[in-house]
Order: sequence, then structure tokens, then C-alpha cells
Amino acid sequence: SDPLVIAGKTYQSRLLVGTGKYKDFVETQQAIETSGAEIITVAIRRTNIGQTAGEPNLLDYVPPNRYTMLPNTAGCYSAGEAVRTLRLARELLDDHKLVKLEVLGDPHTLFPNMPETLAAAKTLVAEGFEVMVYCTDDPIQCRMLEDIGCVAVMPLASLIGSGMGILNPWNLKLIIDQARVPVLVDAGVGTASDAAIAMELGCDGVLMNTAIAGAQHPVLMASAMKKAVQAGREAFLAGRVPRKTYQAAPSSPTSGMIGTTAG
Amino acid sequence: SDPLVIAGKTYQSRLLVGTGKYKDFVETQQAIETSGAEIITVAIRRTNIGQTAGEPNLLDYVPPNRYTMLPNTAGCYSAGEAVRTLRLARELLDDHKLVKLEVLGDPHTLFPNMPETLAAAKTLVAEGFEVMVYCTDDPIQCRMLEDIGCVAVMPLASLIGSGMGILNPWNLKLIIDQARVPVLVDAGVGTASDAAIAMELGCDGVLMNTAIAGAQHPVLMASAMKKAVQAGREAFLAGRVPRKTYQAAPSSPTSGMIGTTAG
Amino acid sequence: SDPLVIAGKTYQSRLLVGTGKYKDFVETQQAIETSGAEIITVAIRRTNIGQTAGEPNLLDYVPPNRYTMLPNTAGCYSAGEAVRTLRLARELLDDHKLVKLEVLGDPHTLFPNMPETLAAAKTLVAEGFEVMVYCTDDPIQCRMLEDIGCVAVMPLASLIGSGMGILNPWNLKLIIDQARVPVLVDAGVGTASDAAIAMELGCDGVLMNTAIAGAQHPVLMASAMKKAVQAGREAFLAGRVPRKTYQAAPSSPTSGMIGTTAG
Amino acid sequence: SDPLVIAGKTYQSRLLVGTGKYKDFVETQQAIETSGAEIITVAIRRTNIGQTAGEPNLLDYVPPNRYTMLPNTAGCYSAGEAVRTLRLARELLDDHKLVKLEVLGDPHTLFPNMPETLAAAKTLVAEGFEVMVYCTDDPIQCRMLEDIGCVAVMPLASLIGSGMGILNPWNLKLIIDQARVPVLVDAGVGTASDAAIAMELGCDGVLMNTAIAGAQHPVLMASAMKKAVQAGREAFLAGRVPRKTYQAAPSSPTSGMIGTTAG
Repeated sequence: SDPLVIAGKTYQSRLLVGTGKYKDFVETQQAIETSGAEIITVAIRRTNIGQTAGEPNLLDYVPPNRYTMLPNTAGCYSAGEAVRTLRLARELLDDHKLVKLEVLGDPHTLFPNMPETLAAAKTLVAEGFEVMVYCTDDPIQCRMLEDIGCVAVMPLASLIGSGMGILNPWNLKLIIDQARVPVLVDAGVGTASDAAIAMELGCDGVLMNTAIAGAQHPVLMASAMKKAVQAGREAFLAGRVPRKTYQAAPSSPTSGMIGTTAG
Repeated sequence: SDPLVIAGKTYQSRLLVGTGKYKDFVETQQAIETSGAEIITVAIRRTNIGQTAGEPNLLDYVPPNRYTMLPNTAGCYSAGEAVRTLRLARELLDDHKLVKLEVLGDPHTLFPNMPETLAAAKTLVAEGFEVMVYCTDDPIQCRMLEDIGCVAVMPLASLIGSGMGILNPWNLKLIIDQARVPVLVDAGVGTASDAAIAMELGCDGVLMNTAIAGAQHPVLMASAMKKAVQAGREAFLAGRVPRKTYQAAPSSPTSGMIGTTAG
Repeated sequence: SDPLVIAGKTYQSRLLVGTGKYKDFVETQQAIETSGAEIITVAIRRTNIGQTAGEPNLLDYVPPNRYTMLPNTAGCYSAGEAVRTLRLARELLDDHKLVKLEVLGDPHTLFPNMPETLAAAKTLVAEGFEVMVYCTDDPIQCRMLEDIGCVAVMPLASLIGSGMGILNPWNLKLIIDQARVPVLVDAGVGTASDAAIAMELGCDGVLMNTAIAGAQHPVLMASAMKKAVQAGREAFLAGRVPRKTYQAAPSSPTSGMIGTTAG
Repeated sequence: SDPLVIAGKTYQSRLLVGTGKYKDFVETQQAIETSGAEIITVAIRRTNIGQTAGEPNLLDYVPPNRYTMLPNTAGCYSAGEAVRTLRLARELLDDHKLVKLEVLGDPHTLFPNMPETLAAAKTLVAEGFEVMVYCTDDPIQCRMLEDIGCVAVMPLASLIGSGMGILNPWNLKLIIDQARVPVLVDAGVGTASDAAIAMELGCDGVLMNTAIAGAQHPVLMASAMKKAVQAGREAFLAGRVPRKTYQAAPSSPTSGMIGTTAG
């Protein structure tokens, strides 16, 4: 009744998760299942989905007939690298079109390289990919990515793996208010409330990996994140009370029933 | 498996809700049921629980055999008023002992009056009440209330009805770290993420009224709050990733599988 | 032309400083002189102002004929201790009346003990002291201290020595808006902007010690703090531009002079 | 002894100011003089510096032999517009080379258009301009601008004219830590403490216009800003005390002199 629609396909969950950093594929599987996520992102350059015969294959644990796979270009520092990586993913996944583009600016911050991201997006869209794109929280460049034809924009909350939460909710709000494609926060979420805040701002979804995989108890954190994204979405739809910095109003009508004079 | 224990009694829900400000008792009932709350606080001076014959009675909608009623002293500005109000509540509720003490400092801010609160707490504990106490986020005075024998301390997040969220998480942390009774945030929560943050800080529970009753869609917000409190609690137990202000770590091991050199 | 008036006496500087934690009395003197402070607070239980013959005496470096001395009760944990300490100070300082009362709640947080503070304030005012009082950021108890007859209320920004800055500006604003005596932030300032923020909120002054004495270069930080307090005061008086979260307005009228069409 | 060096020229003041939004050129002159600024930025498309004969000329009030003029491209939405505007400025100002490039993304947010900014920067540097460049707080694109040959990068604190202060100090820190040219915060400063915070983060300077011109008392705010920038710089150089979230240390050595036992 409140689905997320990306590239024409409908999803019930607004939490997207990654597959990196888990102890093993069993834990990956358990956390993903608990999270309720339907879209699972995979770093093609780091995860075996069939390229390496004889090694454990993620797809045996996270089967593509059950989940929507979202190949990503983690570790790519140029448009060329990213495009080549996603072409490979398309081959490995039987002409799969939905992808996550990420082109990084340097290995220390993992901050996006926006000129390369814009260039790669143009190529990929022209080649028929459905491009969800990791980017900075720059409303103008988000609009450019949308104009290029990306199916979702995914601004960072904060640096990948930092767990710092949403550092600039105002930029995020600018992006959300103008976007005509889904806006998902990608990177930087550290704990449940960060995910809830993203949804309360009006984001269409949240993508995370480290916050779950790096928690002391990943499966429990996956449960927390599932509920947090739902809570944030419902709070957004429910219409929160306005903030009043100063004058408190009593929680009950002041025309008291008993004792208001006699005490 | 992770119950909240107050005055020796066990609860599964860590969300406590009020009954004021709803459109009618039907909406009150629906929101409370949706919230999953087991402890329901009632402003004795403003709500009919039997004092006024012939008027609708809250207890017909929120039955005491199903919920733990928590009579409160909303609207009291002195220890004397508060003590008399709770004695009346005890009569109305068949020698009910669990109460919420709140003594306000002025009608504009509804900020607690701590000297009167301390005085009332002493009297009430001596009379056999089990006192949950609304108070400022002052760790020293919270300890005094605990030493008096209160069964839970309930510091404000921000002013009653303000929806401003947790204004001083550091004070709250001081209180939580030293407390030997449950610490519940009471007042000021505005939306789901505020509740999640309180639980992530280590609070034992959250009490709210306006945030649900004052939302545009109270029942949907009640659902959001139920999930937010659970999400925050699970995130607290799951052990979140540390914040790293600067150096991001990639979400996946850097020993990539393919393409890392050829790109 | 914009003096600070405390207990009927006029000061040009709104920065009050302490004397603890410096390398030696020479550094103390230089930092104080650079800060431009006119009111200097001294921990009577820790600083020799004549009690210990043969030891260096602070008053030789910070002469009372040049500065207004403000004896304080740092290290006192009860009303009784505080009152006795200030009676001693009055003797040592020739019937000096202006004092800073501080009663702490525990040695780990140095958070104020408000019940003891209120009790001591009553006694001291009755004995003719002019009491400036360190306290929590509780608007109700600040008003009680004012009603007792204190000449200034001095809520903490954050814990003594923490350098955390103003943790709850909203409480501080409540206090400022209702106070009829000067409100000074005392404790917790860490750097220049913290002092400026306090003044911009409408505080009448700022008292600090660790932020200056504990800096790597105390005298330079004293200069920074002098300017920061002045800057914050002037900004408060100048009437800042309103915050606009969203729609930016150009800094210049949009009816451009040249090139607006031809570009 | 702590000069700001831009394009090989040395300045004593680290506050740069604009000339827009004042009541008249007399007020402009007074505010600029009070601010102590040495570099004055002028919107070439909105301000008469000689293009329009017979109208008041800014240069009669802010003489170029006293101040370093910094022509800017406010109101330009493409690289082409910006380049043409600065070529005109060079003519009007006798082959003046130091300029501020700003290419905006849309008229509602005035957020920078980074692809156009990068393109314009390349052209301008190739034509011999010394380019100070307004930009987003994107560390990767700031480095690109530096690699192109810009003489200073000037990330926004928040939207132009918003007065929201520094929304993302973490990004700003990333930029500062890697930059080899001066980093100045440009846009978004609202009050004195914002300017101090920018300097405490390690910025080399701050550029503002609305915060001064739009204040209720612009000349007084100019004074506040002068002091705030100095205070922030000194605090940065003085080495602030570390933040301690929890355990406060007393401001004085605990080996008290008197009364510590007897009280």
C-alpha cells in the first residue's frame, strides 16, 4: 500500500543492504533475511558471483530468484573502470540491467568523484542500464544525474563506513524536494536512528552495509534497521507534531476535571 | 527475553503512552492498542476514570485488567497538590500503588519543579506508593530521587509538548550510567527517531503522549513509535559500529576478487 | 556604553576568568591581563591569598585594587562547607561581599548539587553576601535563586573542565528570557566560538578558567576569548539576519546592472 | 606575523566582505571600514564600478588603491556568462587579475553548479586570471579546482544568504586537511560565532556579505565579525582544550590548600 517503485518495479521494503564485511556467507544470509531487504547490492570486484569457479558463490546464499541483485562498482575510481565492471556484471547476471554506480574520488575518504560519476552515468544509461547512483549531497548534480536518466539518486549521509549518520540534512531535503526519481540515502548510516531520520526527512529508502555487518551482533542490528526504516517511514506519513522551541503546551486539555482548584 | 522490570513487575513493551489530547476515547483506544504499550499514564485531574458519573470513562476503553494504569499528577504545581491527587487515584483504582509523580514549575514551560518533586517523592514513598518520577536531566537530583526510593526516574528530553527531541543527550547519559533503577525519557519526544535515539543511549523506556496524539495520523504514529522503540533497543543491544569522523573504511575487504588491477 | 552591572557595580568587560591550572602565577597574570577581565574568581580552598604565609600569594600578581576578586567555593560538596569557606574569604579579603557560590554533587562530574546550593544561597544572602551562583541550566531553580536574592545566576554550559561548549542552548534561553539579574555562563566553554554563542544567546557574561589555562598557549587563548565575548555581544546587539533553511536570497538586488540578459 | 597569503600577496585581515544589500554606498563604506577587510568582493553584474556613467560609483567609496577589489560573477549560471563577466571586470579594473568565480545552479537555492564552475575555472586560469572559486564542500572537486590552478577554494558554509552557518564541518575539515591553497568559507555565515567556528576548524579566511549588510545594525555587526574572525583564528593557533564528554576535571589542582578535610 506504500510501495517503493524503482525503474517500474515495486518493492515492499525500503531498506537495501550490502553483502560485504560479514564473517561468512551464512551470516550474510541471516542478516539479509532478517533485514527484510528485497534489493541486495554486491561489489562485483570483491564478491564471487560466479567469476571464480570453486570458491563459495554468494548467489547460493542470496539467490537471485528471491532477491533483486544490485551489482555495484565499489572500488572503481574512474568512469571507465565502473562501466567495464557493470558490463561484466550484466554478463554474469544474464543481462541484468539494474545497477548501482559508484565512482570514488580517493581511497582515504571514499568520497564520490562526481565528474567521473556523471560521465559513467551517461554511458551506462545510453547502454540500457537502469542506474541507481551513489553521489554527493549536491542538489544540482543530483538533478543532472536525474536528467541523464538515472532511476534513483543515492546521496551519501556521510563517508562510506564512517557511521557518522546524516551530516547535512538540509542538503538532503533540497534533493528530496526537487527529485522526480526515488532518493535513497547511501553510506554513512551508523545506527537505527540514523535510518529513521533519513526516512523522516522524506527519503524513499536507505542503503547500508557496514552499519549492519560491522555491528557486534549483525543479525540483531539487521532487525533494528528493518524496524527503524519502517518507523521512520510511518512517522513521515503520520505527520509529526511541530517543534515548539519554547512554549510548551500541556498534553491534556487544561479544563481539568477534578482538583484543579482544590489541588 | 529482554523485559523491562519496574517495581518488580515485568513488561515486554518499553513504550509507555498517555491518554490526553486524542479526538475521543475511541481514537485513544486505537492508538494505545497499536502502540503495544502496557503501561498507560492518566492525568487524574483531567481524565474521568470514575470521578464523574454519567460522563464517558476512560477505563471502559483502556481497561485496567488489560493495561497497567499509571495515574499521574499533570497540572500540579506543588508537592501538596501532587500527593493529594495520587491519594485520590489510589482510592479510585482500588489501592493502586504504581504512580507517576510530576510537579511543574510554571504553566508556560511546564518545566519540573525539583524541590517540590523531591518533597513529594519522600512523602509518597513513605506512604507506600511506587513512584515513577518526572524530573529534569540533572544526574545529581536523579540520584537523590533514587535514594529516596523512587522505582524509576524519568528525565525530560525537552519541554512537555514541545516535540524538540533530546536536547541534552550527555546529561541523559550521565543519568543512565549511574542509575540502579530504570531510566525512562519522559516529555519532548517529537517523532520516531527521537524515541530511537533515547533507546540507543541506553534508556530503559520512553513515555510519550503529544507525539502520538498530536500527529496528523495518531494511530499510524503509534505504530511508528512502537517500531522506533524496538529498533532503538535492538540497536543498543546489537552494539553499533564506532563513528569515524574521517578515514572511511571500505565496506568490503580490499583484497578484491576481480578487476582491481585491470579495472 | 554597554556595561555589565552586578550588584550595583559597573564593569566594561563581560569576560570573567579563574586563576587555576596555570603553570605559575606569572602566566596567570599575563593571561588575565590579556583577557581584559575585571572580575577574577579564586578557589579559596586551593589558592593562597594569604592563608599560607611564606608561599607565593596570588594577590601579589592579581592585585585586588586593580581587579574585583570573586572568591569561590570550588571543591565544596555541602552547603555548610561552602558557607564556611566564604566566611573565611570575607575575613581574608577585608569584609569582601561579592562571592561565587558553587556546591558540587560529586567529584566525578562536578555537576552542581542544587538542594545544597539553594540552602547555601539562603544563608549567604542572609549574612549579607552578594552571591553569584553556579547552577544547573534549570530555569525554575534559577528563578528560585534569584528570588532568594542572588545577584547573578551562572548556569553551566557543560561540565566543569569538559570543554564541551553549550549543550542545551534552549534551557539557557529560557533562563535568560525570564531573568531579572545577570545571567552568566559558567563552566564548559572550550573555545572562542562557545563564548561567542553564549553572548549571542543573550547572556550577560561568561566565566571560564580551563578553556584559557588549559590551552596550549594560554595567553593567546585569553586574547581569543576577549575578542570572542566582545564579538558575541556585538552580534547580539547588532541583530543577526534570520536563518532561512531553504530559499536563499541573493546578496545583491536582482535587478542587475549589466550582462543579465546578454550574459 | 600571521598573514593570509593569496596569489603571492599578503593580507593582515582574514575577513573578506561583499558590497551588496547595503542601504547606500555610505553605509557600505562604513561597514567595510569597520570590518577591517582588505579584500572587497563586487558583483560586476549588479554594481556600478564605472560601467554606467552618471550613476554613483562604488569605487568612489571603496577606492581600489586602498582595498584589493575582488570582482565576482554573482548571478551567472553558466561558465560562458562567468568568463565574459570577468573579462569585462578585467577591462574595467585596469587588467586586474584576482577574481572570484561563482557559477550558480539555480536561482532558488543559489547552490553552485560544479561542472560549469570547473569548466570556467579552466578557461580563466588559462587566460591568466587568479581565480578564487566559490564551490560546494566537496573535497574531491575542491582538489580538482586546486589542480586546475585556482589560488583559493571557497566552499559554502550553507546556502548564500541563508545565515544557517556551517552545516557540514566534517566536509570542511576534509577540504582543509588536504588543501595546499587557502581555504575560505564563502556563503552561509549568519552571525559572529559562525565565523569563529570556521576559523577554529582551520579555515584561512571567511567571506561574507548578507550577515553584515542584512543585520539590523550593519556597522556594529561588521565590528563583531572582525573580532570573531580574529578570535577564531587565535583560538585555532592557541590550541584548544580537548573535549571530554564525561569526566570533568576540576579547574584547579585537587591538592587543596585549606579546608579540604575540615570543610
